[in-house]
Amino acid sequence: MKFNPRNYLIWHPCTQMKDHEEYPLIKIVKGEGVYLYDDKGNRYIDAISSWWVNILGHSNERLNEALKRQVDRLEHVIFANFVHEPALKLTDKLLRIAPKGLSKVFFADNGSSAIEVAMKMSFGYFKNKGKIKNKFVYLDCGYHGETLGALSVCGEELYSQMYKEIMIENIKVKGPDCFRCPFGKTRENCNVECFSFMEEALVRNKDTISAVLIEPIVNCAGGFKIYPPIYLKKLRDLTQELDIHLIADEIAVGFGRTGKMFACEHAGITPDFMCLSKGLTGGYMPLSVVLTNDEIYDTFYGDYVSLKAFLHSHSYTGNPLGCALASEVLDIFEEDDLLNKNRSKQDRLKNRVIEKFSNYKYCGEVRSIGFITAVELVKDKITKEPFNWKERLGFKIYRNALKKGALLRNLGDVIYFMPPYVITKKQIDELVNIAFDSVVEVLGE
Amino acid sequence: MKFNPRNYLIWHPCTQMKDHEEYPLIKIVKGEGVYLYDDKGNRYIDAISSWWVNILGHSNERLNEALKRQVDRLEHVIFANFVHEPALKLTDKLLRIAPKGLSKVFFADNGSSAIEVAMKMSFGYFKNKGKIKNKFVYLDCGYHGETLGALSVCGEELYSQMYKEIMIENIKVKGPDCFRCPFGKTRENCNVECFSFMEEALVRNKDTISAVLIEPIVNCAGGFKIYPPIYLKKLRDLTQELDIHLIADEIAVGFGRTGKMFACEHAGITPDFMCLSKGLTGGYMPLSVVLTNDEIYDTFYGDYVSLKAFLHSHSYTGNPLGCALASEVLDIFEEDDLLNKNRSKQDRLKNRVIEKFSNYKYCGEVRSIGFITAVELVKDKITKEPFNWKERLGFKIYRNALKKGALLRNLGDVIYFMPPYVITKKQIDELVNIAFDSVVEVLGE
Ligand SMILES: Cc1ncc(COP(=O)(O)O)c(C=O)c1O
Ligand SMILES: Cc1ncc(COP(=O)(O)O)c(C=O)c1O
Repeated sequence: MKFNPRNYLIWHPCTQMKDHEEYPLIKIVKGEGVYLYDDKGNRYIDAISSWWVNILGHSNERLNEALKRQVDRLEHVIFANFVHEPALKLTDKLLRIAPKGLSKVFFADNGSSAIEVAMKMSFGYFKNKGKIKNKFVYLDCGYHGETLGALSVCGEELYSQMYKEIMIENIKVKGPDCFRCPFGKTRENCNVECFSFMEEALVRNKDTISAVLIEPIVNCAGGFKIYPPIYLKKLRDLTQELDIHLIADEIAVGFGRTGKMFACEHAGITPDFMCLSKGLTGGYMPLSVVLTNDEIYDTFYGDYVSLKAFLHSHSYTGNPLGCALASEVLDIFEEDDLLNKNRSKQDRLKNRVIEKFSNYKYCGEVRSIGFITAVELVKDKITKEPFNWKERLGFKIYRNALKKGALLRNLGDVIYFMPPYVITKKQIDELVNIAFDSVVEVLGE
Repeated sequence: MKFNPRNYLIWHPCTQMKDHEEYPLIKIVKGEGVYLYDDKGNRYIDAISSWWVNILGHSNERLNEALKRQVDRLEHVIFANFVHEPALKLTDKLLRIAPKGLSKVFFADNGSSAIEVAMKMSFGYFKNKGKIKNKFVYLDCGYHGETLGALSVCGEELYSQMYKEIMIENIKVKGPDCFRCPFGKTRENCNVECFSFMEEALVRNKDTISAVLIEPIVNCAGGFKIYPPIYLKKLRDLTQELDIHLIADEIAVGFGRTGKMFACEHAGITPDFMCLSKGLTGGYMPLSVVLTNDEIYDTFYGDYVSLKAFLHSHSYTGNPLGCALASEVLDIFEEDDLLNKNRSKQDRLKNRVIEKFSNYKYCGEVRSIGFITAVELVKDKITKEPFNWKERLGFKIYRNALKKGALLRNLGDVIYFMPPYVITKKQIDELVNIAFDSVVEVLGE
């Protein structure tokens, strides 16, 4: 039987709806820990934390209680001239763990909006100081969301190409690509020679560049490309030297995903703006924040009639429900010593994937950091030639894994493991087995 | 004593933080019905529904329960290839009450993102059909949010002017301004002569215009400018004739605010895109939707390799908590016959404001529709000359009203009443009295 997705009433995100002629939508009725349950009685390990948001497991008891407590007090209040306990608490906790120098918190609703806030603040900072710097720099493998401002700094052309006529043009730079290093180096023996692309672009355009946007350590949507911290360190030094802001997009990598609370810590840097979302509420609901510093704040500070204020707002800015959840998430990190506890699980995940995949004929690379492990599948292990994208092999593997009980959404021919931190070692083993079997069934032994 | 907001850790939205040297932030600890309570024991009538979101009162029992029920089932799941009951139910209910012809629902997180989705879908539709139409038309008094795409169609320069160098340029059209009608007409005796500005712009640029964005019936952030439905009707006819999309931004006016479920109903039109947010969740948390039609959906429908799909996504797209709340909101509308029940309250509000204000020396106009009543204060009632904006008289009135127990945020020198629908007639009377007293104290008898 064929379904007719032309008749679906819901238009799903990031989806060619015609795919559903062959694969009906899966209706989820319950979540618990790492598992999702559908209406047919099937169970799935949520190997990607539902688009990288669910870090503490579905239906987490503490988070459920925190939400219920908050809704009985105050569900929402306008955040201009007003404030409330959940936002104050969250702010305090965030600034205590943030890279040193970050001292102010601005709230928004989702990741894309946080990026737009940082871009506008950066531009506004220079404009308030009398300088027009209207360009942003981004990596060819970077992704920062899909509202038009965020999309104008999206290196992944799959998302941005279609809309180029309605976006401003920014400056794209070739980013680190350690698997296919153009300098023939490896992550271990390189001196980030690839930073020269960035250096050249920044030096050449320094007067017009407001900020560089970057996903610290891992370009996630760009195929889980992991790069050495020294790249970030050099970038921080150079941007400082050239009076350019650094916007660290920690939306996907923040909150322990790379093994440290924030990925910037791997390089010991403090960006001018740090954007957080996704795991911020433990995967419960949209909320985002932009952390920045006193100098930037002060540039917008002045008499009202100077019209220097940062007037950006969203109706639900600072929503108490989201703040209460986020505050509870940070308590759990601390009380459960989560970063330390995660370590042996992360190792287990990495080692199991290496064991299973590294000698596999079509395994180009296993790359791993913290609670992210990714496998890039290639047609030719030696030349690293990719499969023809039109065959959609990654997608077939994803469909296959679903049948076997794992939600293991692919990114092209990269499959990746980014489970909730509550996953057990036994579940890790099960997941990696499912993944390998699903791959072999599609690509062959 | 002076506060030092330079030391605040939270940077508030739409706020010159220096204002807080004189006015400390108000910390809200509880909400109940139309009231907000601060930590000093003060109570405020929330006359603006906390930025126009809270339509059913704070701490609404049914909404609190709906949220608690949902979080015990499923807090969130990725919305690509997956679905869940709250989204299905909400979609069904929305499409049953939406203007005829709207048949698909796309989810996003906040109002701005919904606008960006509609803009991208409109542009993508034409591009998928082989036409590049890269311009959007907007009114000089329109507001659609502040991410850079939404801001590029914001007529209110207070928000957009600062960022013009990092936005694409769209086409601004002089919108209806009935209080200061350039044709010397009134709402009752006009034939929307002002539509000529729109007509001229559309005809001249028809080949490059993808869509017109408009707030139906009321330009809210633009000063609560109310205009005749015939303007919308003409706009719908002309856009259809010229193959231009109409994006109806019902983010502020939807869900009964203008007396009808959706403001488009006043003109009996169906737009190509209808954006909803704010009241959608009853003011509990961010969620937005874009409603559109089969023709647009079909243009993105095709084989994956055609790369026609609409790939926009947000991590929390279709969040079950938001959907469950929104679904409950629509049940309350139906079961409580809310639109009808609101009527006599709306009349009371309007009449009380007219009684109090219309003969007042500085009252330029009282304008009202449904559960919106606004008063534009002017320096000269005859010439309609406004006060000097630098005096910030509206802001002073707002500060004054707070002292008297009402949150009555001004928009320039327009003060407006947009309370939660649960307000009683007695509370309406109290509110209007506070408002009038606050005005007179600032402007004089
Ligand atoms: C008419 C209109 N459109 C869009 C928006 C933007 O919505 P949000 O603040 O949720 O981004 C608003 C918010 O005030 C609005 O009033
Ligand atoms: C690194 C990064 N930045 C920004 C975003 C955008 O966030 P949102 O989807 O909440 O708009 C994402 C989401 O996938 C992301 O991975």
